[in-house]
Amino acid sequence: MADPKHWLRSGFALFFEYNTPRIVHIRSKKVGIINRFLQLVIISYIAVYAIYYKKGYQEFDDVQSAVTTKVKGIVFSNYSHIPEIGMRTWDVADYVIPPQENSAFFVMTNVIPTLGQTQSMCSEDPTIKNIKCENDDYCERLKGTIMPGGNGPLTGKCVNSTGALKVCEIYGWCPVENGSPYKNLTQPILAGSQNFTVFIKNNIEFPKFDVRRRNILDLYENDTDFGNCRWNRNDSKGKFCPIFVLNDIAKDAGVNYDDLTLQGGVMQIIIDWTCNLDQSVDNCLPEYSFRRLDRGDYVISRGFNFRYADKFAVKENNTFVQYRNLYKATGIVFVVTVQGKAGKFSFFPLVINIGSGLAMLALATIACDIIVLYLLKARNFYRDKKYLDVQGQDAFRILEEESPQDRMEGSSSSIKKRNVTHSYDGNLEGDGTDT
Amino acid sequence: MADPKHWLRSGFALFFEYNTPRIVHIRSKKVGIINRFLQLVIISYIAVYAIYYKKGYQEFDDVQSAVTTKVKGIVFSNYSHIPEIGMRTWDVADYVIPPQENSAFFVMTNVIPTLGQTQSMCSEDPTIKNIKCENDDYCERLKGTIMPGGNGPLTGKCVNSTGALKVCEIYGWCPVENGSPYKNLTQPILAGSQNFTVFIKNNIEFPKFDVRRRNILDLYENDTDFGNCRWNRNDSKGKFCPIFVLNDIAKDAGVNYDDLTLQGGVMQIIIDWTCNLDQSVDNCLPEYSFRRLDRGDYVISRGFNFRYADKFAVKENNTFVQYRNLYKATGIVFVVTVQGKAGKFSFFPLVINIGSGLAMLALATIACDIIVLYLLKARNFYRDKKYLDVQGQDAFRILEEESPQDRMEGSSSSIKKRNVTHSYDGNLEGDGTDT
Amino acid sequence: MADPKHWLRSGFALFFEYNTPRIVHIRSKKVGIINRFLQLVIISYIAVYAIYYKKGYQEFDDVQSAVTTKVKGIVFSNYSHIPEIGMRTWDVADYVIPPQENSAFFVMTNVIPTLGQTQSMCSEDPTIKNIKCENDDYCERLKGTIMPGGNGPLTGKCVNSTGALKVCEIYGWCPVENGSPYKNLTQPILAGSQNFTVFIKNNIEFPKFDVRRRNILDLYENDTDFGNCRWNRNDSKGKFCPIFVLNDIAKDAGVNYDDLTLQGGVMQIIIDWTCNLDQSVDNCLPEYSFRRLDRGDYVISRGFNFRYADKFAVKENNTFVQYRNLYKATGIVFVVTVQGKAGKFSFFPLVINIGSGLAMLALATIACDIIVLYLLKARNFYRDKKYLDVQGQDAFRILEEESPQDRMEGSSSSIKKRNVTHSYDGNLEGDGTDT
Repeated sequence: MADPKHWLRSGFALFFEYNTPRIVHIRSKKVGIINRFLQLVIISYIAVYAIYYKKGYQEFDDVQSAVTTKVKGIVFSNYSHIPEIGMRTWDVADYVIPPQENSAFFVMTNVIPTLGQTQSMCSEDPTIKNIKCENDDYCERLKGTIMPGGNGPLTGKCVNSTGALKVCEIYGWCPVENGSPYKNLTQPILAGSQNFTVFIKNNIEFPKFDVRRRNILDLYENDTDFGNCRWNRNDSKGKFCPIFVLNDIAKDAGVNYDDLTLQGGVMQIIIDWTCNLDQSVDNCLPEYSFRRLDRGDYVISRGFNFRYADKFAVKENNTFVQYRNLYKATGIVFVVTVQGKAGKFSFFPLVINIGSGLAMLALATIACDIIVLYLLKARNFYRDKKYLDVQGQDAFRILEEESPQDRMEGSSSSIKKRNVTHSYDGNLEGDGTDT
Repeated sequence: MADPKHWLRSGFALFFEYNTPRIVHIRSKKVGIINRFLQLVIISYIAVYAIYYKKGYQEFDDVQSAVTTKVKGIVFSNYSHIPEIGMRTWDVADYVIPPQENSAFFVMTNVIPTLGQTQSMCSEDPTIKNIKCENDDYCERLKGTIMPGGNGPLTGKCVNSTGALKVCEIYGWCPVENGSPYKNLTQPILAGSQNFTVFIKNNIEFPKFDVRRRNILDLYENDTDFGNCRWNRNDSKGKFCPIFVLNDIAKDAGVNYDDLTLQGGVMQIIIDWTCNLDQSVDNCLPEYSFRRLDRGDYVISRGFNFRYADKFAVKENNTFVQYRNLYKATGIVFVVTVQGKAGKFSFFPLVINIGSGLAMLALATIACDIIVLYLLKARNFYRDKKYLDVQGQDAFRILEEESPQDRMEGSSSSIKKRNVTHSYDGNLEGDGTDT
Repeated sequence: MADPKHWLRSGFALFFEYNTPRIVHIRSKKVGIINRFLQLVIISYIAVYAIYYKKGYQEFDDVQSAVTTKVKGIVFSNYSHIPEIGMRTWDVADYVIPPQENSAFFVMTNVIPTLGQTQSMCSEDPTIKNIKCENDDYCERLKGTIMPGGNGPLTGKCVNSTGALKVCEIYGWCPVENGSPYKNLTQPILAGSQNFTVFIKNNIEFPKFDVRRRNILDLYENDTDFGNCRWNRNDSKGKFCPIFVLNDIAKDAGVNYDDLTLQGGVMQIIIDWTCNLDQSVDNCLPEYSFRRLDRGDYVISRGFNFRYADKFAVKENNTFVQYRNLYKATGIVFVVTVQGKAGKFSFFPLVINIGSGLAMLALATIACDIIVLYLLKARNFYRDKKYLDVQGQDAFRILEEESPQDRMEGSSSSIKKRNVTHSYDGNLEGDGTDT
């Protein structure tokens, strides 16, 4: 028994063994059909959904992307009654702020300029709360305070504002912004911006597969041919053109461009690169979609605007005096989002998907077992075949040993015998000593 | 045998069959309790962790987001001993640089202006290494060189700097920046920026579920009511207010705002939208948290600053002379990160989670098998019941056929018989010819 | 039978039971070896690939990151034949536009300035299509039109352009940009930008593990020592230096820096933090890599450029006249991408990986079953051992009851008996009434 040769052989024997579950092979039309149907559902799910539809045979890589944008377009505005604007031509360097942004660009559509501000004293914005005064006493008490929404600390004086109105004086960038001439405008200052075009240059890479693509396809003979194309969802060539008319972007997103211009808004441009690299890389093509990211139907806090200033100095009496032109710029932010992934055949995910699919086949067996063992009239017959009832020494006996008999009443004698045969008898245990 | 009718029927028969494993049903208190306990652990894990806690019954979608920010606030500074600053009111157009950024904003808190620089000749910054000179000879030898950290190529002349110091002359933007008057300032130039507010407008979408939300809730009656709210973590209404006082952001991140202003820093504002769309969409609410992204406790390279310039020309003797105002701006970058996902009930992930859970139940059986077959005193009795020992023709026989006998000694005769019965005898194989 | 005591005991009994599949234990060298080999493959896959290589024993967290950049460098350009440029020193505030960007920076390498533009009338760009005229008649007909690619609406006049050429006059920012003096330049205006350095400050956090790191390591004694380091892939200390020479970035990406400067380009700087937090956190170090994101080998739309303007006003006859300097800036966009994840030991993923591994072991059994039951000569012998053939009442009978006999011909009588014994006889079902 302690023979080392014996143990060696026993160890070797382990390599030449193989365990497989014993199976009850039930021939039954009813259960068979249910079983095959459930198996079909599971196999379909694996094959169609997990492997075919979700491309379970591929490994994937996310896109790495670079986006640069270039807006083009000129508008002319003529507002003789607003001297700050007057007769003006606006170009890219005027309305794209900042001039270069990572994966985004802003197009100014409306503007309230306040030209020639300098640090000095002037009347505060009369629309500010509690700023009206009748004499210096009121303002003197608030001296040094910056009113909520105000433009600078009060100097303590009460001065004339527009008309007969008197307001407290401030020290700050003067004169303060005055939006009233722009209140009743029915169209934005930069009317015509819907015809601006933006060229979105997008270079992508799937590093894992070493595939590089760009959104300028080889459909164009030369720069002129290319420069004349415009994106158009319904045209087989046009839908790959990376030059977009701003109005087309709005229309495709289901937005009225004019709703964006007076109050501003945020649009998203999505470039989707979903590529199946098992096919030719030439089929790896971008798809464009557009969406308004802020909703326009709010009363509170609509649109998008911000203030910026151009600063400069002017030499007066041989010293520099600092000035600035303040602009309240309203417009559309376009955010460019590049998404996508590429898939390519790989052995590992396929094996894993098939493996987990086979594991799920056990579910069909479980469902059929429930039917066979609990629902069919012949359930006790099948239970007998499936189960080998073994009574351990410490079995929990139901109703003092009569229960097994009870449960089996009416079954064949061979079944009764089974229960008897397999009850564990402590005396059998003598062989436990040899290990 | 080759009867096609037979084969057809055999094929049909396949659809009316069903295989289920034969099971040894062991009645034993000890093993039963272990078994049920392990099953309970696994089922709890599936039900509580994978399905309930990790929401295994939902499919998920990531958030699509747009962020725009608007800072408000005015500070007044009065530095009579620094003429470049003097008496000044600073507003948004002065301290937010660039005026509009995608998902981020910078608030300048400290500044070193150098006004009226023009391309000309002047003395180099005296703090630069090896720049001091006694006469032109030294500089002449370095003519054309740009010193490390210098502001332009040396002209070759040695000129007067501050005090009795002589340094080499450069050609470039002159005069060069001089930070010395700002060295001993104990508070930043824009003191009071902690009271600035920022309104963060965040519109999100879960495209898969077609759910759009924004962080301005319907808690407010009108613009004024809304405009007066301030974010406050401890207030049931205030914690949804998207207007933040900069100091509150710092406090909530556990940072002293004053630590950020003199040297600058980087703060992150996280907006988290974790939504359970099985509930009302009104419960899909943002949660705000804040964090300092750079650490302030470093000696090397603390804080955040950059240089920018306002450029302009001045007409002198009817020609334009180009000037610029250079600013070394120190301040706080706020980066807004929107994260979140939404979950909604879906059949597929639930099925997959239940399926993989059932597969894991096999682990309980494996553990119990180890106990029953290797650890219990009655292990040989159970082994007999579980295993049907089959000797293939090419079985690896341990110690020339006596070993199986040996192993079984002491077991009942029926067990010995089992080993004998199932040895494979080549003669049985006659039926192999019919396939 | 309806005794509640009986049911209670039956319910209890459920807790003291344990089911385990009955197993056919086949001793066969051939099948055993195949079985063990397949098990080895699966266990290796689990242990080596899923657990060791893919770190299946860890839970992961994605990196949260903040990036700030600081470019340094001065170039001097001397173009006596281009008065707009002339003799000039360029510093950071001149060539980094905008001065501060979130995770990106732009370095201008080439520029076409158009100084002193003002809103007025001048001759249109002669390179524009259909702009040439002989007299006012042609232009008059187009009055108010903005030509494609033009700079403003036509005034209707035909005026002198360069040389003997006559073109229509426009109203807009005048004079218009004239790129012709820059056409034949063989090197960029800002020659020498390859020596600029950029200091990329990157602070990261793995929030789940509360680990914060930054890319300035404790390798440097003081600011001077640190400031003198330069990134170098091949140096054990230098590869962690976060100060990069632009030319080194290009070289490491396999790009000739000079290819980027004349036409511009887009580079990506990838900072990878892949950290195993089971090891010391000091081993959590950044790795830098570089890549050109746009390809330079295109005819159509090469490089990267944009236009921006500095705006200012000049006092002429005591009123402000608005001017601007327009710049067409060409250069390199550097996009900084921070990626990475940290892993740390966790119990749950380990359990799940082991569990799914054990489930996959069933695949070895399936494969061996196919061999044993369908391919081996002794297949029928093994089938008999594995399968218990049970005929349900509604079994699909192949060739009227002779088929099972037929199929079993040549097998031992005990096998024949099996088929007979287990056919379901409706009379057996009497016990079905007790539930």
